[in-house]
Amino acid sequence: MQKLNALKDRLNDVHNLRTAMGLLGWDQQTCMPPGGAGTRAAQMGTLSKIAHELFVGPETGRLLAEAEAEGAGLDYDSDGAALLRAARHDYDLEARLPTDLVVETAQTTALAFEEWHPARAASDYRRFAPWLGRIVALARRRAEALGYGEHPYDALLDEFEPGMRTSQVRAIFDELKAALIPMVRAVAGQADRVDDAVLKRDFDEGRQEEFSRAVAQRLGYDFAHGRLDRSAHPFSQGMGRGDVRITTRYERNWLPGALFGTIHETGHALYEQNIAPELDNTLLGTGASLGIHESQSRLWENLVGRSRGFWSSFFPRLQAGFPQALAGVDAEAFYRAVNRCGPSLIRVEADELTYNLHIIIRFEMELGLLSGEIGIDDAPAAWNARTRDYLGLTPPDDRQGILQDVHWSGGSIGYFPTYTLGNLMSVQFFDRAVAERPGIPAGIESGEFGTLLDWLRDRIHRHGRKYLPDELVRRVTGGPLRTGPYLDYLRRKYGELYALSQE
Amino acid sequence: MQKLNALKDRLNDVHNLRTAMGLLGWDQQTCMPPGGAGTRAAQMGTLSKIAHELFVGPETGRLLAEAEAEGAGLDYDSDGAALLRAARHDYDLEARLPTDLVVETAQTTALAFEEWHPARAASDYRRFAPWLGRIVALARRRAEALGYGEHPYDALLDEFEPGMRTSQVRAIFDELKAALIPMVRAVAGQADRVDDAVLKRDFDEGRQEEFSRAVAQRLGYDFAHGRLDRSAHPFSQGMGRGDVRITTRYERNWLPGALFGTIHETGHALYEQNIAPELDNTLLGTGASLGIHESQSRLWENLVGRSRGFWSSFFPRLQAGFPQALAGVDAEAFYRAVNRCGPSLIRVEADELTYNLHIIIRFEMELGLLSGEIGIDDAPAAWNARTRDYLGLTPPDDRQGILQDVHWSGGSIGYFPTYTLGNLMSVQFFDRAVAERPGIPAGIESGEFGTLLDWLRDRIHRHGRKYLPDELVRRVTGGPLRTGPYLDYLRRKYGELYALSQE
Repeated sequence: MQKLNALKDRLNDVHNLRTAMGLLGWDQQTCMPPGGAGTRAAQMGTLSKIAHELFVGPETGRLLAEAEAEGAGLDYDSDGAALLRAARHDYDLEARLPTDLVVETAQTTALAFEEWHPARAASDYRRFAPWLGRIVALARRRAEALGYGEHPYDALLDEFEPGMRTSQVRAIFDELKAALIPMVRAVAGQADRVDDAVLKRDFDEGRQEEFSRAVAQRLGYDFAHGRLDRSAHPFSQGMGRGDVRITTRYERNWLPGALFGTIHETGHALYEQNIAPELDNTLLGTGASLGIHESQSRLWENLVGRSRGFWSSFFPRLQAGFPQALAGVDAEAFYRAVNRCGPSLIRVEADELTYNLHIIIRFEMELGLLSGEIGIDDAPAAWNARTRDYLGLTPPDDRQGILQDVHWSGGSIGYFPTYTLGNLMSVQFFDRAVAERPGIPAGIESGEFGTLLDWLRDRIHRHGRKYLPDELVRRVTGGPLRTGPYLDYLRRKYGELYALSQE
Repeated sequence: MQKLNALKDRLNDVHNLRTAMGLLGWDQQTCMPPGGAGTRAAQMGTLSKIAHELFVGPETGRLLAEAEAEGAGLDYDSDGAALLRAARHDYDLEARLPTDLVVETAQTTALAFEEWHPARAASDYRRFAPWLGRIVALARRRAEALGYGEHPYDALLDEFEPGMRTSQVRAIFDELKAALIPMVRAVAGQADRVDDAVLKRDFDEGRQEEFSRAVAQRLGYDFAHGRLDRSAHPFSQGMGRGDVRITTRYERNWLPGALFGTIHETGHALYEQNIAPELDNTLLGTGASLGIHESQSRLWENLVGRSRGFWSSFFPRLQAGFPQALAGVDAEAFYRAVNRCGPSLIRVEADELTYNLHIIIRFEMELGLLSGEIGIDDAPAAWNARTRDYLGLTPPDDRQGILQDVHWSGGSIGYFPTYTLGNLMSVQFFDRAVAERPGIPAGIESGEFGTLLDWLRDRIHRHGRKYLPDELVRRVTGGPLRTGPYLDYLRRKYGELYALSQE
């Protein structure tokens, strides 16, 4: 496999540049002083330009064609065949992107992030608007350059969720809207059945951090191959399986933010830390898609972290860490509190029922911005109108509305739907895990997560990016992505919590 | 200046790759989990290879020649002429380095740093020895590739201190040895005149950090363009004037470590933060040499931070931060304590008198290792023998001997002499500053450092790398580098402290 190895060597340089950019991005959100933004933008511009040129250069095309000829007889499931498929997919797409667009995108987003941050803090949409305008314009140019079938959004979506189409997302989201909006209303009618006042007591941030660290470690996160920091917006950043970092944020009077933020990012990190060593530092040494990635973070955050079993084991430890704030509370009351549902303005603080409605708002906003149906100046009004329609709330300011998320400032348009796709997958995967390893729920109740992690490592993690998301879902669950299992899970869990009549 | 601008654009990419490597290095020493070492080495290898190839490629040579022709009439002191001089100097040197040597050096040193760290902690020289062997072999190949006049060490020294020769360093070091060894002995005979027991009391690390931060800020360090972190070995890392980071380390029972470490690194950082904005993100946007850089850190650490005037203003603040540990101590006693002299084993904790003997040990070790007169296996014995000869002490283990410094693990051979050259320059510069701005000492006594910083900015900082170190010393002081002013300063200060008879 001489040609394949030559291809790998070349792709390694591209990969190393990309993981270096990963570190530059991590640093920008956790460590970089404000004065560093200009140089950081210049660094991102140079590295992205060089990575792009190295990847789409004629030398790569030649090596790829030669390696494909050499590897034509490889078994479909072999690492070599998978590498060739991924390299071909990426090469054909990236070769369509002109270098100036790549560089302009890297530089613009590095600066836009620096503007978003104070704009959000000051709830000053006008400060961020010109940057959003530039980013939407860049996204349009990107979609045109990449090419698409039905909708320009297809091109952007495909970069985050390979193979997924806008029309499929729309169909899924329509099913969810039809089911969720009535459920949210029904829950609202029974709102006083669940009380979360206990979560707003006084929780020392240092202790929160200690507990977050302990939970991450207990779930299987390896601190010798990662670290936990603070950032305005929690995220995880993998640079090979040996260095997978997570961040969270602490609020003194809102315990769930850091707690579930950490579990969520731990879910992402467990995926990357458990990719097969053979795939490390190659094109395949990352997640299959953002949707699959999100299925892992959601599975740990919701199916594990918001389960009754989890708190039967972890609540006594939490109570020991916050003896005053949690005095007189028991595991069942705490379980109910962390599953309280109700319309709210901030996506990252939303409950499982309303979360997907936040995503649907963003999906529709992105479609409108991209097509021009929603102008940059009208975007806050369009946002607020949808928030009223789906959640029955009106954001009092843009900080709690259109400015709340980091994603657009980073140039990520087409990313949000993967959160809801991940929610759907998380339940399909978890159901399958429990069907195959019936001891998992009892393990969670006793604070033992190894059986679940082993199953996930074997079925999902170790494969890295060897399979397309749809392939992986079918291999693991035996069928395609569906809304049914997810809606069943929500009806079962929240039906019981809110004593809803089953339809 | 169309050709000059084309050259600048190309050099910008090289510069951005190098500052990105600066961040990768900073992260490795402050944040990176142990598992990240492999990927970090691969990243360093790729980035250094690409930066090298971009810089020495025929395109750069052509652009440089064209820009030189275009800029032939430029004023010597103009930024353009200085850029052309620096670009030519670097290009001619770097073009001699084969790419495989550059990549091997980057990868080897990234891994060697990871081995040095535990080897030092365990005082296990045999663990580090193979890496030192590789690094010395790489240094020999580097010297041969670069070329040299009299001694291979000239080639390595020139990379850190352009224009300096091994024979000059040897002559300076011989003068210093002749003067310092008797002074150190004379002080040892009067050792009980100064007591530093107060510095070994209990100093809370969090409070030390607060005070370090406050001092750095007061001296003029701008935290909006930098940050202070912890690392095993204090260092500063500049990535353009907008992002100049410093680190230090805290020991609960040894106050001077963090305190003077911070002032020292602040001195380096003030240099980089005050380079003229026009030079930012260019080849000239850094210090003139490591010697000049060290003159700035030493000036702030010793001429300012260890002066009687400084503590007359700062001691009350320090005492307010540590009311128990510093109960019953006054500013004069504290001033004496932080200037206590005596032979010790650890360079970074050495006093002003013995410090240079530590450097002379390293200089002689490097010459011996490079020539092969000292073998890798014999190096600890050679180190210990010199420590006995110059300092009268025998290291009880290698952690306090040959393993104590990070430099060799980073591939830096030829670097150490610049510390002593910087000491010499620091006094020549400070004498000149006071001669031109007689209010400086009174300013220091009242906690006002703006006059000194303004003078340094105007005479040294803003020029960045426009002048060679020897040129800069002559421009600022009117004469060449000399040992006289430095030895006069030491005799005056320590003669008074230890009541030595003046020769």
